[in-house]
Amino acid sequence: MASRSCLTVILAAGEGTRMKSSLPKVLHPIAGLPIVAHVAKAVHGAGGSDIALVVGRGAEKVEAAVRSIVANVTVHEQTERLGTGHAVLAAREAIAAGYDDMLVVFGDTPLVETAALEQARAKLAEGADVVVMGFRPGNPQGYGRLIEQDGRLIAIREEKDASEAEKKIGFCNGGLMALRGDSALPLLGKITNSNAKGEYYLTDVVEIANAAGKSVVAIEISPDNVIGINTRAELAEAEAIWQNRKRRAMMLAGVTIQAPETVFFAHDTLIEADVILEPNIVFGPGVSIASGAIIHAFSHLEGAKVGPNATVGPFGRLRPGADLSAKAKVGNFVEVKNAKIGVGAKISHLTYIGDATVGADANVGAGTITCNYDGYNKALTEIGANVFVGSNSSLVAPVSIGDNAYIASGSVITANVPADALAFGRARQEIKEGRAVQLRARYAAQKLAKKAD
Amino acid sequence: MASRSCLTVILAAGEGTRMKSSLPKVLHPIAGLPIVAHVAKAVHGAGGSDIALVVGRGAEKVEAAVRSIVANVTVHEQTERLGTGHAVLAAREAIAAGYDDMLVVFGDTPLVETAALEQARAKLAEGADVVVMGFRPGNPQGYGRLIEQDGRLIAIREEKDASEAEKKIGFCNGGLMALRGDSALPLLGKITNSNAKGEYYLTDVVEIANAAGKSVVAIEISPDNVIGINTRAELAEAEAIWQNRKRRAMMLAGVTIQAPETVFFAHDTLIEADVILEPNIVFGPGVSIASGAIIHAFSHLEGAKVGPNATVGPFGRLRPGADLSAKAKVGNFVEVKNAKIGVGAKISHLTYIGDATVGADANVGAGTITCNYDGYNKALTEIGANVFVGSNSSLVAPVSIGDNAYIASGSVITANVPADALAFGRARQEIKEGRAVQLRARYAAQKLAKKAD
Amino acid sequence: MASRSCLTVILAAGEGTRMKSSLPKVLHPIAGLPIVAHVAKAVHGAGGSDIALVVGRGAEKVEAAVRSIVANVTVHEQTERLGTGHAVLAAREAIAAGYDDMLVVFGDTPLVETAALEQARAKLAEGADVVVMGFRPGNPQGYGRLIEQDGRLIAIREEKDASEAEKKIGFCNGGLMALRGDSALPLLGKITNSNAKGEYYLTDVVEIANAAGKSVVAIEISPDNVIGINTRAELAEAEAIWQNRKRRAMMLAGVTIQAPETVFFAHDTLIEADVILEPNIVFGPGVSIASGAIIHAFSHLEGAKVGPNATVGPFGRLRPGADLSAKAKVGNFVEVKNAKIGVGAKISHLTYIGDATVGADANVGAGTITCNYDGYNKALTEIGANVFVGSNSSLVAPVSIGDNAYIASGSVITANVPADALAFGRARQEIKEGRAVQLRARYAAQKLAKKAD
Repeated sequence: MASRSCLTVILAAGEGTRMKSSLPKVLHPIAGLPIVAHVAKAVHGAGGSDIALVVGRGAEKVEAAVRSIVANVTVHEQTERLGTGHAVLAAREAIAAGYDDMLVVFGDTPLVETAALEQARAKLAEGADVVVMGFRPGNPQGYGRLIEQDGRLIAIREEKDASEAEKKIGFCNGGLMALRGDSALPLLGKITNSNAKGEYYLTDVVEIANAAGKSVVAIEISPDNVIGINTRAELAEAEAIWQNRKRRAMMLAGVTIQAPETVFFAHDTLIEADVILEPNIVFGPGVSIASGAIIHAFSHLEGAKVGPNATVGPFGRLRPGADLSAKAKVGNFVEVKNAKIGVGAKISHLTYIGDATVGADANVGAGTITCNYDGYNKALTEIGANVFVGSNSSLVAPVSIGDNAYIASGSVITANVPADALAFGRARQEIKEGRAVQLRARYAAQKLAKKAD
Repeated sequence: MASRSCLTVILAAGEGTRMKSSLPKVLHPIAGLPIVAHVAKAVHGAGGSDIALVVGRGAEKVEAAVRSIVANVTVHEQTERLGTGHAVLAAREAIAAGYDDMLVVFGDTPLVETAALEQARAKLAEGADVVVMGFRPGNPQGYGRLIEQDGRLIAIREEKDASEAEKKIGFCNGGLMALRGDSALPLLGKITNSNAKGEYYLTDVVEIANAAGKSVVAIEISPDNVIGINTRAELAEAEAIWQNRKRRAMMLAGVTIQAPETVFFAHDTLIEADVILEPNIVFGPGVSIASGAIIHAFSHLEGAKVGPNATVGPFGRLRPGADLSAKAKVGNFVEVKNAKIGVGAKISHLTYIGDATVGADANVGAGTITCNYDGYNKALTEIGANVFVGSNSSLVAPVSIGDNAYIASGSVITANVPADALAFGRARQEIKEGRAVQLRARYAAQKLAKKAD
Repeated sequence: MASRSCLTVILAAGEGTRMKSSLPKVLHPIAGLPIVAHVAKAVHGAGGSDIALVVGRGAEKVEAAVRSIVANVTVHEQTERLGTGHAVLAAREAIAAGYDDMLVVFGDTPLVETAALEQARAKLAEGADVVVMGFRPGNPQGYGRLIEQDGRLIAIREEKDASEAEKKIGFCNGGLMALRGDSALPLLGKITNSNAKGEYYLTDVVEIANAAGKSVVAIEISPDNVIGINTRAELAEAEAIWQNRKRRAMMLAGVTIQAPETVFFAHDTLIEADVILEPNIVFGPGVSIASGAIIHAFSHLEGAKVGPNATVGPFGRLRPGADLSAKAKVGNFVEVKNAKIGVGAKISHLTYIGDATVGADANVGAGTITCNYDGYNKALTEIGANVFVGSNSSLVAPVSIGDNAYIASGSVITANVPADALAFGRARQEIKEGRAVQLRARYAAQKLAKKAD
């Protein structure tokens, strides 16, 4: 198909008022990516390098979301809402440029798949002029039925116009369409609004093309492809389908997921085979995990890289720029941000490592904090190879701790520590014998005094 | 309906032995509220201001749960278990007071809806004497069938007594009933125990009323309304239905919930439109969240207020009295209790803020702890506007930090810090060159010595 | 059945290539226990004390997994893959030893139940020579049908050989079989490979036994029993079924689980009645919880013991050796490892207690860290009864704190503290008036200078 040029018209002008949102409908995210970008991704996968985007409000942000996937985008504003046929023709200029293939898809159907669009384009390549993408819903009631004869699609019949026999047809119009580039404008131009609602229906192209002796066919695609989003409840349902697809694909590729329904991927999560994912893991965008790694329960990762045989969590938190080398360990209640963690280094509990490097085989004790921000600037903490950082230490950046150095527990480290040195920064302990008894007595007396008031 | 007085008899005397619990069955919570209080809430919504509560064991606590919703409650002990008809008459005194309407509901059906009770009362208002609430279960087997004729309910036929034709009826007795106040006692009084089990069946009222020429009708309510709780498995199923209702209502009102099945609301959770809820959030009672706020994954909130555009989590923990102003940020592994957090203030990591105020735009560093408890009393920590608290600091309450002050990292602060001052309380760092090498050598020698033993 | 000896042949030689794993298929865990060990557990429950394990690759680890459940295991390598009949005869030597009963089960069906195997053995005890375990799948297509006549099983008909009438039979071959010990070898020995694939089919035993005038019967077992694992997706599905069984059993036994679908048990989790489990809890192996305890949301427990009326979480983390006495409290972002926590002791926030004992009614403040590891050795921390450990303290092990002692907040404690003493180890606070203003001015100047560059 690479040899055939293709324009895809994405209809994204819907208001989306039922979302009850200040954000345009097609920008609501699924797996961290806007709905319309999911559509663009499917189009791109099917060889659709050029997109004509038909938009209403929020045009700039919608355009940006599509451009994040595909470079060649023209934007066409649909000022009036006079039906799908009218919407497509808002992109008349782009269509006129003369593509081999043309696809019409919706901006609010995030689950449309590359395979479905490829299948439609293949029909064009075989000589079809118009390809309608149909599906078989659980209950066809309310959908337009696809009326076929001898392998040709002769009409799309709306529910209200259908005969009893036609109503029994389970094959329905999904709305997505492919047209041969040189037939597209002539056919689209013949759509009229001489109907009850006074709208221009894209589906009229089927009868127009048949009347013109063109080849019109229907292909069957899975129902997911045409699920449109109109409410946040539908958004959540589409998210669930997306997540289930991803989970299943991951497992079949060799990732162990103990409780798949509790693991949430981002659109770009990359996980190698023989990784183990325990229950309750959330991935933000930009995460990759190498083979042999284990992500324990209740972990949250975004913008992070986890090396082979490394372990994270439970209760692990990797923020953007966290980069764990092989066999590194990030344990419970530990946050890592913008930090390279060396091979076999251990950060096991209750620690914040931010804007830092941690050397190979270093051991960072419980409760350690890199004080990377002084209220004005962020600064770096460098921890060398094989360093031992005692528990509950504060490392005040910028600071560098040399290889093999040893930080005593509870220290505040403000100056660089040379390699092989021992550093401490903590007060000497003092003991007041019997003083706890006095304290208790004093508080008890206060309490009595209060009661006496 | 406000003009008609209404008494609701709640039957809550069941033992609930299959719960295997020391807690009375109707006090087990759904969404943090006892089952029987859910029932009282539905009754209250339908204008039922007066409740006659028929109870067995645990009467005081059951009464308290109902009183938390409705003020006018009379309590009637059912000493013997002689059937539903007998149970209702335990409240004879209350019924005799002369209400316009009377409802009979069960204390163990937490999903009964106000709309169902309103529908029944509307029938009374239209002139019915007895209204039976029926439902259509997936499989009617085992339920009493509602036998209707010309819009009248003429009998409730138990499965064992039903003809083959009657068994095909899918409309079943849900047990809930509404009676015209002045007909109630005369009809109820005619129920006898001349049947195989020797019990008084409330359902006999239907034939008694028909025989007396009264108007008896059935209305259809959704099956959820009559789901009774007998085991903890059924309790969990009812909780799931309740949560799904709430999630859906929230989403349709404009709340984004990425993975609704992982978010658990309390009975009183209030969330405005355009709030975003990531996966895995648990709400205890008493939470409200303003528009534009984001609650990240793995957060737990109870008794807390989150202002507009504030963010919480991931791994955020808001305890009672946490009150976040607009744009405040509570980050990962942070606990806030009984503390007002100012506009735009940031508490990003591994911190405990309890019994405190944090001023606008203050920045509280990682690992900060308000030491609010001295073993005897709790005391307050006041952090002014624009204060910078360095990481890993301990603020020993009672203590006050003035506006624009600066606390150095790793400090223990025990005395008030004036506005604009710099405070620190940490030991000077010392370095012993080469000492880490000696330490390592010493431990290695110890190891060798051990092996030699 | 205790009086009848029983050999169980477990067929576990499958390659499991679709798992895409370096781990042998039957060693993938469900609820923390390898698949094949689940099978051994069911066998053991049904009185099968002797196991003949037919294996391929990874034999040692597979044997170890089975031995962890049953002591008497013989291992038989199946070098070629010539069908199930051939596989069973790999254990010829064990079978020849002369058992009363013989069972044939699969190593990759983790949900096989003791009850099903007991049912089959009961048939042998009643005189059957061969017992085939059948099941009724939702859709029988593709399965071998069980052809019965007058209560006898006369044939297993493969889909491709079945007549239209036989295809309508919903009772299918589950593959599991029981044979009378003294009939087993003679019958198995007669299986030939004279079929299209040239394999030895165990199912041929049915016709062979019928021809020999033996008693052959089928019993019906639930479909779960025969679910085999071939991909990680199927592994996750089996895990889900296992978890649902366990959750339901727990609830019916009196455990409250608010959202059962979010709680994940290990194979050996023990929980008493009237325990409350909030949403999102993960159990690793080796946990027991006593009555009245509450495990709050987002908690992770493994190898831990929770005493009566103790509470854990939310965000609680109990690691191996955590042992909470009655009424102890472990709060949010707290990790406990190898530590005995006394009656009523409280560890409420952001704390790590490792290799320690905490006395009754002790109070460990927020941010406390036991520094149990010095980079070379682990050492113990002893905290006496009624001790108060101030917030953000570091207890550097080995160290002992006597009963009723008081540690001031923010202290580093390196030496033992006697009973009743007050100890502190923190620097004196200093205040530099107006210095924060200067700091801010300096940073502002730096910023300006940078911009000027």
